[in-house]
Amino acid sequence: MYKEILLFILLVVTSFGTYGQEKEKHQFNLMPWPEKIAANPGNFKIDKDFQILIKNESDQSSRMYKASTRFLRYITDKTGVFIEQGFAKTGTDEPVKGAVMISFDAEAILEIGMDESYEMRVTAQGIEIKAPTDIGAMHALSTLMQLISVQDGAYVIPNVVVMDTPRFPWRGLFMDVARHFMPIDVVKRNLDAMAFVKLNVFHWHLSDDQGFRVETKSLPNLYQKASDGQYYTHEQIKDIVKYADERGIRVVPEFDVPGHGTAFLTAYPELASKKGVEYTLERYAGIFDPTLDPTNDMTYTFLDKLFKEVTPLFPDQYFHIGGDENEGKHWDENESIQEFMKKNKLKDNHDLQTYFNIKLEKILAKYNKSLVGWEEIMTENMPKSAMIQSWRGVNEGLEPGQSLVEAVKKGYQTILSNGYYIDLLLSVEDHYLVDPMPEVELTPEESKRILGGEATMWSELVTPLTIDSRIWPRTAAIAERFWSAQEVQNIDDMYRRLEVINNSLELIGLRHLQAREFILRNIANYQNIEALRELSNVSEPFKIYSRNAGGTEYKSFSPFTLFADACTADARDVRPFRTLVDQYVNSDDGASKKEIMDYLSRWSAVGKNLALLEPKAPLVARVLPYANRVGDIADLCLEALNKGTMSQEKLRQLEELLNKKEDPKVNLDVELAVAKDLIKLGKFLAKN
Amino acid sequence: MYKEILLFILLVVTSFGTYGQEKEKHQFNLMPWPEKIAANPGNFKIDKDFQILIKNESDQSSRMYKASTRFLRYITDKTGVFIEQGFAKTGTDEPVKGAVMISFDAEAILEIGMDESYEMRVTAQGIEIKAPTDIGAMHALSTLMQLISVQDGAYVIPNVVVMDTPRFPWRGLFMDVARHFMPIDVVKRNLDAMAFVKLNVFHWHLSDDQGFRVETKSLPNLYQKASDGQYYTHEQIKDIVKYADERGIRVVPEFDVPGHGTAFLTAYPELASKKGVEYTLERYAGIFDPTLDPTNDMTYTFLDKLFKEVTPLFPDQYFHIGGDENEGKHWDENESIQEFMKKNKLKDNHDLQTYFNIKLEKILAKYNKSLVGWEEIMTENMPKSAMIQSWRGVNEGLEPGQSLVEAVKKGYQTILSNGYYIDLLLSVEDHYLVDPMPEVELTPEESKRILGGEATMWSELVTPLTIDSRIWPRTAAIAERFWSAQEVQNIDDMYRRLEVINNSLELIGLRHLQAREFILRNIANYQNIEALRELSNVSEPFKIYSRNAGGTEYKSFSPFTLFADACTADARDVRPFRTLVDQYVNSDDGASKKEIMDYLSRWSAVGKNLALLEPKAPLVARVLPYANRVGDIADLCLEALNKGTMSQEKLRQLEELLNKKEDPKVNLDVELAVAKDLIKLGKFLAKN
Repeated sequence: MYKEILLFILLVVTSFGTYGQEKEKHQFNLMPWPEKIAANPGNFKIDKDFQILIKNESDQSSRMYKASTRFLRYITDKTGVFIEQGFAKTGTDEPVKGAVMISFDAEAILEIGMDESYEMRVTAQGIEIKAPTDIGAMHALSTLMQLISVQDGAYVIPNVVVMDTPRFPWRGLFMDVARHFMPIDVVKRNLDAMAFVKLNVFHWHLSDDQGFRVETKSLPNLYQKASDGQYYTHEQIKDIVKYADERGIRVVPEFDVPGHGTAFLTAYPELASKKGVEYTLERYAGIFDPTLDPTNDMTYTFLDKLFKEVTPLFPDQYFHIGGDENEGKHWDENESIQEFMKKNKLKDNHDLQTYFNIKLEKILAKYNKSLVGWEEIMTENMPKSAMIQSWRGVNEGLEPGQSLVEAVKKGYQTILSNGYYIDLLLSVEDHYLVDPMPEVELTPEESKRILGGEATMWSELVTPLTIDSRIWPRTAAIAERFWSAQEVQNIDDMYRRLEVINNSLELIGLRHLQAREFILRNIANYQNIEALRELSNVSEPFKIYSRNAGGTEYKSFSPFTLFADACTADARDVRPFRTLVDQYVNSDDGASKKEIMDYLSRWSAVGKNLALLEPKAPLVARVLPYANRVGDIADLCLEALNKGTMSQEKLRQLEELLNKKEDPKVNLDVELAVAKDLIKLGKFLAKN
Repeated sequence: MYKEILLFILLVVTSFGTYGQEKEKHQFNLMPWPEKIAANPGNFKIDKDFQILIKNESDQSSRMYKASTRFLRYITDKTGVFIEQGFAKTGTDEPVKGAVMISFDAEAILEIGMDESYEMRVTAQGIEIKAPTDIGAMHALSTLMQLISVQDGAYVIPNVVVMDTPRFPWRGLFMDVARHFMPIDVVKRNLDAMAFVKLNVFHWHLSDDQGFRVETKSLPNLYQKASDGQYYTHEQIKDIVKYADERGIRVVPEFDVPGHGTAFLTAYPELASKKGVEYTLERYAGIFDPTLDPTNDMTYTFLDKLFKEVTPLFPDQYFHIGGDENEGKHWDENESIQEFMKKNKLKDNHDLQTYFNIKLEKILAKYNKSLVGWEEIMTENMPKSAMIQSWRGVNEGLEPGQSLVEAVKKGYQTILSNGYYIDLLLSVEDHYLVDPMPEVELTPEESKRILGGEATMWSELVTPLTIDSRIWPRTAAIAERFWSAQEVQNIDDMYRRLEVINNSLELIGLRHLQAREFILRNIANYQNIEALRELSNVSEPFKIYSRNAGGTEYKSFSPFTLFADACTADARDVRPFRTLVDQYVNSDDGASKKEIMDYLSRWSAVGKNLALLEPKAPLVARVLPYANRVGDIADLCLEALNKGTMSQEKLRQLEELLNKKEDPKVNLDVELAVAKDLIKLGKFLAKN
């Protein structure tokens, strides 16, 4: 039978359609969308005989076996099925009825360009997975988890044939653990989520002005004087790297130099470009002046020592040295640095930083590491062996992706992050259509230098509690961009699938949904949270770092359990409400009007219900003015809808209310996400 | 000023009352209740200047510094206060206004009898903590976190003086990670919770019939053939031990021998008492026959190798070898073992097990470890240097705590677990009043041998998702039993405090509340969970392992996302409802009648609301028959309350409905926790 299945797979390939041609496949909630998928009639039923047969692996400590154990837990917990054994008896090559039969050719060594492809065939009789590597087979298991659906009151896996492989080899999630430290459980659950959407690079930003996050036995001041006690031990780093490896994820560490250097200089002030300063860990967010002195030999001795200790912890070939946002103020002010530049014919700070980077590249080469840096390292004389991470764009006064094109044209390998700054808290739509492949024409060689991209989670405004809801679910859509065909671009379909994936990520282990409920409980001091939940469904946290404009600025020990922290980008009620308003203003139908009024009535009640909480909770008081304003807004619209018209005076009142800002002192830091829809509604009613 | 404060502390001591004498102190939600506490008027306000000054520590990697960083995160997240700096500039001995000033004499080495005491004084001007050890000072921070309360719309810490020290030196939580594996993040968050309620021993049950959970490089089959890939690496164990140490918690590992040995024998069948069997990991729960062969020298070579590898991972003096529930069936059946016993004058299996234990004690002594075992090891010739864990009681046909008294009278040190089996899912009341100190008279020497106790979390019926809600909050009350004065026994006051502690534990990091909501979402397939939540507030999971009687038995890969897994002991609505029914039958007052009817109306609606969910969720279907029965029960009572009377016929119907069981096939596994209150109500109404 095994050979017949193989033959079938070969035959069925011809019937695959390309994306968009086959309507029926859109029933599946897969993200990223696979390269090829064909649906067949019927289902595989999940019952007590569900089991896994790994054809060429019996070591339970192997990657494939561990992934299978996790997969079984997911299946039983998702479906409620009591699985009898879980694993078929090993050592057989015979197909086992009802089993997931996994075979792969080799255990992958994680590196750029490794084969991640897989083929999978689901039939009523069993599921077959074949892949060149175990990592490919593990991707198949993720696809399988996402295929689970309800049919006739039971959980099933629909019969499909999938052939799948990624478009880009570098599909990353960047996590800053310096601004706010993230313990290893946070990293791990995010690695689990990454594997679920087939991301394969974890870029770990381990040092910045606010802290140095690695135990460095040869340079103890770094963790003893510049970490607040929040750092990873060697054991923990090895544990994370192994955990990532077991999920097919490479780990690229970043130690940001020469700028973003306050933590380094708090530990070792003798390396500073500006002497005589008492450096202490930065508590604010921002760009700061403390910078390593590139003209001081001790700096290189120091970095050599650091790299010597940490490079063995990170087996990946790539090593990120940051290099961003060095404004060189302390270089300009330091006479001896200025003299050094003259002597060495370094005409400006760019040249000096290149001098520094080239030194670093040589040190890293000693430890067999290839250098990666943010785009600022791409100066005139920078060797082409360096990899460039393109991050600046419109916010920095540049064209989006400008440095990416520049880099590949100059001969650098690159990855794109501009457009994937998820910490800006923009809608998923703003990221989804950004493609690592630019629109300008490139030669095949140039195109090939674009390895993929990374979603970046900077941590100025997140803690372990909130980071999941800031990364997910939007990063799943970015993961699709990196994996799937470029033409997979349908926004509505993305949103439909994202909603399901968002829920599934909870079973994978993310706390994005749970943290929100917890934060609301904490705000309400464990009284009823219905009203707060309602309000958060239509409120979004301030975008593009504006949370730090006005009000109390967020620092290292600021609270991240405020109402804004319970709200997310793409607030849940916004799209449905928008659809209703569009329907109503376009066709004036009664059904959408009724539903709009249901929403408005609920928003109208929030402030009143919050005021009822007794005893008063201190954090609720900060939300009340906003809740009352939303209530007033809702009342205005309700009244107008009831009348079927809105006066110009009321429309002006509505606009005024919508434009009103809360007292920055309360740090509410959210906006009503349906504001423009309400204006649209008001203007429509005002015309009646 | 510092000296004045000290003086004040000394003076104020005289005004301390004993528990129960001072009514006003019951405003505090402390658990465990401190040895001495005196309230003063006024509060310490938590504002932006909140900061910590550790008087004799500047190393940020020290235990105290790390605890302080965690403490600051708790404070800011709990209160919403934007803390400016967090840490006062170190290197000063001057008191800093508004600071938490911490001083301690020495970093403790964790061992039995270490000094864990502390003194704390909160005034409007600042908070002072003094302790002989850093662990004592960390206990003070836990007390401080629990003291936070609301006053005039702001979070404050009331002015108090506390002098505190534990009653017992061994205050443990036992966790079985063999039946269901618990990843290190589960262990860590439970260590955090332990520290919050001042528990100080983590007993880690690392092997059993269902799996061996430690990477053993010298004996690779153990983790490669008998773990399902679920085991701790050396790095992870070191990480956990360090994590526990940083919270003042000792880690005592347990490798259960010679019974509970299926995992050992799956890996190394040559050690078995019964030869020629193909051992595979046990998937069921229960007591099984596979047993190590104590007459085989290889067994001791094997255990020596094992202990040699694992003992360096666990710095604690104590090492647990299990020794429980060996029924010796395979010994009886093995002729060569029988011969060996005759030859060595071992008259029964007890003697043989003692022979085995004494061998083990000698091996452990080589590695400087003291042996602990379950009470079955306490046979005639067992050396007095062994420590006895008393666990059997009424369920095993013995007097509660019988073996504890026996042990101390024979000269063994002991710890009590009988009465603290939290996996039985009994009410917290059933554990709270059990005291490690028995009622029989003991000499002072005998009493001193009682070191404390351990709450035991066996994991047959839990996964990482549900374990928190099975351990907590009940273990907080047990922690109080181990720490606080014996006379702290007021049940109502315990419940009042436990509710607050239960909520606080969420900010500490436990997922007990969040997991419940997640499970309900999973059941409802992410539709509305209101009805399920309502039902779970009045339903409790089957107690005393009866979940495994009838229906599908739970095994390694069974689901633990069923309705029973969202329910907990001491279901939330039970006590308030009971109070109302008591009020009503005692005084027939209208207010309690109205509230009772509110509850009943909500229960009446659950089934109807669940039936409305569309599309149908497979796991909801399993809950529906029970929900409908509860609805029928509620309707019967509502009707009678409306009429003011219940006919005998209706009362019989009520009793019948309450006694009805769900079809075991659906594995609902919960009971309506207000059944006896409804009978009481019905009988009262029937008399009218």
